[in-house]
Amino acid sequence: MAGKSTKLKVIPIGGLHEIGKNMTAFEYNNEIIIVDCGVAFPEDDMLGIDLVIPDFTYLVKNADKIKAIVLTHGHEDHIGSLPYFLKEVNVPIYGTRLTIGLVETKLREHNILSRVERNCVNAGDIIKLGDHFKVEFIRTNHSIADSCALAITTPVGVVVHSGDFKIDYTPIQGDVIDLQRFAELGKKGVLLFMCESTNVELKGYTMSEKTVGAIFEEIFEESLGRRIMVATFSSNIHRIQQIINSAVKHNRKVAVVGRSMSNVVNTACELGYLDVGENVMIDITEIKNYTDEQLVIIMTGSQGETMSALSRIASNEHRQVEVKPTDRIIISASPIPGNEKNVYRLINELLKSGADVIYDGLKDVHVSGHARQEEIKLLHALVKPKFFMPIHGEYKHLKVHQKLAVELGMKEENVFLMGIGDVLELSRDKAKIAGSVPAGQVLVDGLGVGDVGNIVLRDRKHLSQDGLMIVVVSMGKENGNILSGPDIISRGFVYVRESEELITEARNVVKEALYKCEERNINEWAFIKTLIKDTLRDFLWHKTKRSPMILPIIMEI
Amino acid sequence: MAGKSTKLKVIPIGGLHEIGKNMTAFEYNNEIIIVDCGVAFPEDDMLGIDLVIPDFTYLVKNADKIKAIVLTHGHEDHIGSLPYFLKEVNVPIYGTRLTIGLVETKLREHNILSRVERNCVNAGDIIKLGDHFKVEFIRTNHSIADSCALAITTPVGVVVHSGDFKIDYTPIQGDVIDLQRFAELGKKGVLLFMCESTNVELKGYTMSEKTVGAIFEEIFEESLGRRIMVATFSSNIHRIQQIINSAVKHNRKVAVVGRSMSNVVNTACELGYLDVGENVMIDITEIKNYTDEQLVIIMTGSQGETMSALSRIASNEHRQVEVKPTDRIIISASPIPGNEKNVYRLINELLKSGADVIYDGLKDVHVSGHARQEEIKLLHALVKPKFFMPIHGEYKHLKVHQKLAVELGMKEENVFLMGIGDVLELSRDKAKIAGSVPAGQVLVDGLGVGDVGNIVLRDRKHLSQDGLMIVVVSMGKENGNILSGPDIISRGFVYVRESEELITEARNVVKEALYKCEERNINEWAFIKTLIKDTLRDFLWHKTKRSPMILPIIMEI
Repeated sequence: MAGKSTKLKVIPIGGLHEIGKNMTAFEYNNEIIIVDCGVAFPEDDMLGIDLVIPDFTYLVKNADKIKAIVLTHGHEDHIGSLPYFLKEVNVPIYGTRLTIGLVETKLREHNILSRVERNCVNAGDIIKLGDHFKVEFIRTNHSIADSCALAITTPVGVVVHSGDFKIDYTPIQGDVIDLQRFAELGKKGVLLFMCESTNVELKGYTMSEKTVGAIFEEIFEESLGRRIMVATFSSNIHRIQQIINSAVKHNRKVAVVGRSMSNVVNTACELGYLDVGENVMIDITEIKNYTDEQLVIIMTGSQGETMSALSRIASNEHRQVEVKPTDRIIISASPIPGNEKNVYRLINELLKSGADVIYDGLKDVHVSGHARQEEIKLLHALVKPKFFMPIHGEYKHLKVHQKLAVELGMKEENVFLMGIGDVLELSRDKAKIAGSVPAGQVLVDGLGVGDVGNIVLRDRKHLSQDGLMIVVVSMGKENGNILSGPDIISRGFVYVRESEELITEARNVVKEALYKCEERNINEWAFIKTLIKDTLRDFLWHKTKRSPMILPIIMEI
Repeated sequence: MAGKSTKLKVIPIGGLHEIGKNMTAFEYNNEIIIVDCGVAFPEDDMLGIDLVIPDFTYLVKNADKIKAIVLTHGHEDHIGSLPYFLKEVNVPIYGTRLTIGLVETKLREHNILSRVERNCVNAGDIIKLGDHFKVEFIRTNHSIADSCALAITTPVGVVVHSGDFKIDYTPIQGDVIDLQRFAELGKKGVLLFMCESTNVELKGYTMSEKTVGAIFEEIFEESLGRRIMVATFSSNIHRIQQIINSAVKHNRKVAVVGRSMSNVVNTACELGYLDVGENVMIDITEIKNYTDEQLVIIMTGSQGETMSALSRIASNEHRQVEVKPTDRIIISASPIPGNEKNVYRLINELLKSGADVIYDGLKDVHVSGHARQEEIKLLHALVKPKFFMPIHGEYKHLKVHQKLAVELGMKEENVFLMGIGDVLELSRDKAKIAGSVPAGQVLVDGLGVGDVGNIVLRDRKHLSQDGLMIVVVSMGKENGNILSGPDIISRGFVYVRESEELITEARNVVKEALYKCEERNINEWAFIKTLIKDTLRDFLWHKTKRSPMILPIIMEI
């Protein structure tokens, strides 16, 4: 029987390219705690995939060790996988009030709310998990309220996990990130610092959320007589608060459109994270009772998502809101990489309706929720860890963060660039990457979790590029004579009505191949199928320089 | 018989979202001249499409009127459609030497070089086309050498077309954009100014190409003992010149990888646009004869294109070049919108191999070839046109450009935001949008030009999301009895081996539906097919929340 380990293991699990973003396991001896449990969004080549969740294999295998899931904040990439994980391993979850509020909405939708233990904490609280872990929640600033960093006390030392953060000296609500506590922890000695890297490539500071409010004020002042619509992330409660503030000041009512926006606004109002005066919010069905200059409509869709409120408004498919040439529309977000073209398309469409559209770049109607280089340096200077692990970034971000840490005086060998599933093993004075555990991504498509793999994706890719051609033929069981067909059906290849000749030729090519088989008494199916495939592929490539998927089907009668 | 028109018509034809980018027709009376003939690159939802060319319908119908095609510069979005157009309407083409050189390579590949009349001009030349048009080529600066603006003299006045331009006071080769000529034309009176809008959203000036050379020098100086690789656009000859300059200075040999890069470098060398000393260029097969510090390799792939040299090098699939941890790789380009994720993936991959990767954002290793606001304002101030048409931009760019023109003192009613195919009709003192002609986009897929339409794309989209399920059944001709099947084949839906149960259930669901038909003596094919489709769709949605394409095939024996 193996002796008990006296090492701390830190394991980033799951996620796509962003190391440690969605889920991280901390293991000591016979105990595991998990930080965050989020989703990633599918890559372009993951055709038809809805979500990407972490591979839970290692955790399910060690389910009895898991004491809790600790959440840093309520963004999807930190809480979105909870329903999938909790269905496999039911453990208590801990988070601040807004985070737990958002999680509860999610668990309710998956019908598992009642069987999950939820625990609300406040920034500053310290919780004891198992025999070996204490977790302290530290107030940070971020683009969602109630975000926290974590100080995880373990038998070998303290790990500080930044969560997602920025340093906002003039936050909309609550206080500045608890710099004093980071300093205090640093002074006492931190074993490992795990720090987010989203904006580490950018010089300088991220601007305060408050600067966006000032721009909103300007726009509201210049919008006499016009209706104002604002699209932003539903979770950005401070942004929404600022829109509401301007609305109140300018005697406008606020209506909210879109399910996720309504969900979050309701949760935030109930929990007191949104300060909404009386008679400010109206239902979207009531907008007809007000003039344009009495209205602000807040909605989702800032990423150009096809089904979102703003996209449907732009294409005149929204039931309650119709865009007018006098509207002023603010897109209070910047495109997440990969969404640029969709966002631009949306802006073009809205502009063509005659409305005025204000987007990031024209005016500063958005600031990031993530720290830039100078803020990151500050946190490093306060925490002064023995070891450092850059997290929440693609490899290129981690490399830049590594370089930055080295410039700040850290030895390169004390910086650990992890791969997903890599195990960082720490004792009081040593750290090394010691092997890896099964980890990675699991694709969710509809109700299917993990049933779409590489073969299915490869087929979808093939079908998406050149479509398919099906060849069906019935053959006599005994003699292999052709009883019916070959018939040819194609989809996504050419527009059949305009290419009848090509299809007829294709059928003849197959016929000829089949006759040859008949002549030679070949009735081995595998052979015939391969022959049809090869013959047809060559013919079609020659004629069209395209390679549709070819599916020969032989029916035996 | 209709009287002759004394109006000039200006018609942006083709292109996707960027108005006037790919092709513009100028028509007066019985004469047409065409400016540029380029391609657009397919949108994400144009699955499997290789290229997008303009709809030539209007021009083919008026083929006898067309006097010439005039080219502003040699980028694909300005010359790429020439082979497709010239196969339909063979007219003379005019352009500067490098532009014509690049066109010739293209026409040779399409086997139509010998039957096309090519005419080389120099900046400053004026050519007469037909009875009504004179075209003057005006030197500009851009990211490809030998770029020109055009002054088109017509019976109703002069049209100035900016082409793509920036103002580079310290160009790598040749002179500054011919500001004096723009001023002279403006002084004499310009009827219509057509000005590009690519960077009109950006404040300030675009930096000189020379600033990139200075950064290259820094990097070369810091790269003792290391091999240097640079990825950039093959057409950016000034960039390539600067790489070669640094290479020569640091006693490095230069090898070129990739077909398009070799093509352009050869053409540019032959025509004298690249100043390469003796014994500088080596063949890529010779790199093994040199040490790392004696080498620079220039290649394509700065956009993360899967098949490009750099991508293949990154994934260790290149025959001649293997990436080493000591390599220093410069990506001298910024991602074109839509390519961000591919570029980031490429950078991550290269970094993981241990190489040092320098990309735009970390260091200023790229500048744009397009004018920003202050440069655009300068050209407006020189040209001072009566009417203005912003071009080369999405609608949002045109709107910003319109606003900028109005700020410069132009009346809003004299600014024309065109749609593709819209006709701007001009007399000496009036301009108005007067109807439109058939125009738009034609999709090229392999050898097929225009045979992939909305139905085919919709099918490809459907197949890409959830794959397909084929149901085949053989039925007796007389009684409609089932002779064989139903068989079920699926692709891109679920991984069949792991979902055998689902497929078996699906078959049973179809069987039951078919038995009911047999019982009720229903043997109408259309009915049976619809029944199979509906039954199966409901079953699969219930089980998986997915909607594969369902293709029922009935074979009659």
